[in-house]
Amino acid sequence: MNADPTLVARLPIELPALDWITDTARVARLSQDFAWFSPVLKRQLADKSADIAVRPRTEAEVRAVVAACARDAIPITVRGSGTGNYGQSIPLHGGVILDMSGYNAFCWVRGGAGRAQAGIRLADFDRQARPQGWELRWLPSTFRSATLGGLFGGGFGGAGSITYGPIAATGNVLGVRVMTVEPEPRLIELRAPDAMLLHHVYGTNGVVLELEVALAPALDWIESIVTFGSFDAALEFASGVGSAPGLVKKEVCFLGAPVPDYMSALAEYLPKGCHAVLVVMAESSQAGMENMAAAAGGRITYRKTAAESGSRTLLEYTWNHTTLVALKLDRTLTYIQSGFEPARHLEQVKALERLLAGEVMMHLEFLRTKDGAFNCSGLQLIRYSTEARLDEIMQIYREHGVTINNPHAFILEDGKQGELNPAVVELKRRFDPQGLLNPGKMRSWYALDADADEAYAPSVNADN
Amino acid sequence: MNADPTLVARLPIELPALDWITDTARVARLSQDFAWFSPVLKRQLADKSADIAVRPRTEAEVRAVVAACARDAIPITVRGSGTGNYGQSIPLHGGVILDMSGYNAFCWVRGGAGRAQAGIRLADFDRQARPQGWELRWLPSTFRSATLGGLFGGGFGGAGSITYGPIAATGNVLGVRVMTVEPEPRLIELRAPDAMLLHHVYGTNGVVLELEVALAPALDWIESIVTFGSFDAALEFASGVGSAPGLVKKEVCFLGAPVPDYMSALAEYLPKGCHAVLVVMAESSQAGMENMAAAAGGRITYRKTAAESGSRTLLEYTWNHTTLVALKLDRTLTYIQSGFEPARHLEQVKALERLLAGEVMMHLEFLRTKDGAFNCSGLQLIRYSTEARLDEIMQIYREHGVTINNPHAFILEDGKQGELNPAVVELKRRFDPQGLLNPGKMRSWYALDADADEAYAPSVNADN
Repeated sequence: MNADPTLVARLPIELPALDWITDTARVARLSQDFAWFSPVLKRQLADKSADIAVRPRTEAEVRAVVAACARDAIPITVRGSGTGNYGQSIPLHGGVILDMSGYNAFCWVRGGAGRAQAGIRLADFDRQARPQGWELRWLPSTFRSATLGGLFGGGFGGAGSITYGPIAATGNVLGVRVMTVEPEPRLIELRAPDAMLLHHVYGTNGVVLELEVALAPALDWIESIVTFGSFDAALEFASGVGSAPGLVKKEVCFLGAPVPDYMSALAEYLPKGCHAVLVVMAESSQAGMENMAAAAGGRITYRKTAAESGSRTLLEYTWNHTTLVALKLDRTLTYIQSGFEPARHLEQVKALERLLAGEVMMHLEFLRTKDGAFNCSGLQLIRYSTEARLDEIMQIYREHGVTINNPHAFILEDGKQGELNPAVVELKRRFDPQGLLNPGKMRSWYALDADADEAYAPSVNADN
Repeated sequence: MNADPTLVARLPIELPALDWITDTARVARLSQDFAWFSPVLKRQLADKSADIAVRPRTEAEVRAVVAACARDAIPITVRGSGTGNYGQSIPLHGGVILDMSGYNAFCWVRGGAGRAQAGIRLADFDRQARPQGWELRWLPSTFRSATLGGLFGGGFGGAGSITYGPIAATGNVLGVRVMTVEPEPRLIELRAPDAMLLHHVYGTNGVVLELEVALAPALDWIESIVTFGSFDAALEFASGVGSAPGLVKKEVCFLGAPVPDYMSALAEYLPKGCHAVLVVMAESSQAGMENMAAAAGGRITYRKTAAESGSRTLLEYTWNHTTLVALKLDRTLTYIQSGFEPARHLEQVKALERLLAGEVMMHLEFLRTKDGAFNCSGLQLIRYSTEARLDEIMQIYREHGVTINNPHAFILEDGKQGELNPAVVELKRRFDPQGLLNPGKMRSWYALDADADEAYAPSVNADN
């Protein structure tokens, strides 16, 4: 069931001062994200669209839209810049796209923490925080356009997670300002740990207006590429640099051959067939990293300070930008996301590489888990054949003790979250009692709440 | 065999402009350190003394002393502030104490690194680096008096090792300036990793004049005491806070009952019989730590910013200051140093506590190992009975898979180092060919080098 078009059509008439987007093509674009990385999600979600979009600039404008939608039971899907890969901000039941990108003021930095409105772009946040000596702890590869609210609502972390872990780790997010979805919306400041009940639930249980996050001291970073002839040597180097406590770093990305061959813009630094490690180190840690590279038989083919890089950054070849760059050259590729066991990650990677080389191309991001264990996470590229074979590959991974965070699912519980914390659903009951936020994404809502509107339940969409 | 007293007596006559100390009592004091923590070392080393001490103020003065000693084959024992606990700077064969505390200039801070002369006190280094936005990565509890050269030559790390690992971890030390012990001393700048061949070898293979170290961004720290009724809850809290990647911290120290009862100066914050965790957190991580404390049933009894603490810091109740504070109240105590297995540290601690409570009092320092694994290191207090029982306790620890870094040994190979890297001995051959530096401390020197002067070999002292 979709929103009632007549009721939706009344919104811009009732609230004429707001920046509404009604052009069907534009609304359709604002209804999509990067879910097309997955052939499965592409098929399931490509035709989904909201009926209308709106770009509020003030809290009062957000409030006016939310109040009207609550009154008329119109679904609201909150969107940042649409850089997600799981259809986080693709509305399944039409209604309104609440595009937060215009609600983007930087509030303040103090005491090692910073606060901004949800729609601020991550790059803008850093641009304003760095002169005060601080920067964001995590930067997904989409940092130029991705918003802070989007990262919190649908993201994991990114560059920086090798030091600070995922966003979900205690201490990273300090508080959020939330608006409830009711005819008289309430404004609530939630501090951590309660604030985390709104993290990575695709905006289903409250409209996040502002975020307060712990920051990292702004450092001068040096970006390097280290190439290797040996897969194992490159892997061990990446793991060694990543875990070394005396080397301060922002990013360690491992690209097994032939992944580097897809990076055509970096071809002069990536000898054909090489294995490559992309690293971003603090200035004073560069020598230590280079010593380790030399000892491992690696060759530094690229080394640039932030000033020397200009607008190019290697971060835009890591995380899901690796996937994007490869997909641009070869649309038949897809990918999986995998989590290794901290104590066995090298062994698991080597075994799976031996088994699936050629079909599965190894791309690993090194990081600290939520609890601080050193680990790597895979965003392996796959030469896609069929959905059945994709499932088979994921099953082989699981049989090796590797967790699969299925990026080919748009329902929260089917992706990385698994069972939802019941407190998340309880919060939705308090903050979005009618279940209007991004309906169809949280299966537990429909399972747990007999009163929930079954019209929006995920089962309706399962075969779509 | 000791140095020839006639030759030693000639030194101040030959070099009258230098600051010589000849008074027997003062020389004896400058020949001792905190080895008296160990009843074993106390017995073995209490009567050891140099013949003379000298406090050079310039490189030229260091050079003059070293050249003269090399010419006359007089042993040289380099000393910082004598805060070591293993007799690192106690001369076994008389000769000259080269007291570096007057050679203490701060050189510079740039690019996240800092450089200073070896005799600079750690507190002075920080005082000069902090206005430039940086601080040392590690502070042993003796930071007020301990020198940078002493920490490098005989120390491990300290507060800060929970983030940056031990000094030995790649990337922490960037370079050293060394003087060789020859009639014509040479000056050599060694960069890491070679520079590390001079680390923790008690000044036996070169005279370190300057150190260049990677720094940490200077943060505003908050010191807290969290008390618990339950040993296990306190332990798990300490481990959880210590490993949490989103909580930026400088120190997590666990004191099982009855250790806190020895901290009489903090008695108002430490209910009798409590288990306590002393933590030093970055300002923006304090709330996250307090949330974890509340969840674990801990009570914050003390919370002070650096400004509020004034000259008192909880760091002076951690690491070997815990031992010192307890020994001041009860001279019959001693201690051991132990290293747990990262994957089993909690389990091992709990098992040993159940087995030895009463006789062994649990004091743990949480840290990252050289490779970045999260772990704890024990500096357990022992109700001392006999050397045999002390050995038995250490054996029980070993049988539980715990490493003992025997703090009751003054020879390098008998303490934490175990087998020395042959490159260390090779460096000594190049930089101290006559074996004059701190003779008797490096067993491998005598074992490997048939030409080494056997008069200084450790065996001579074994039963002393």
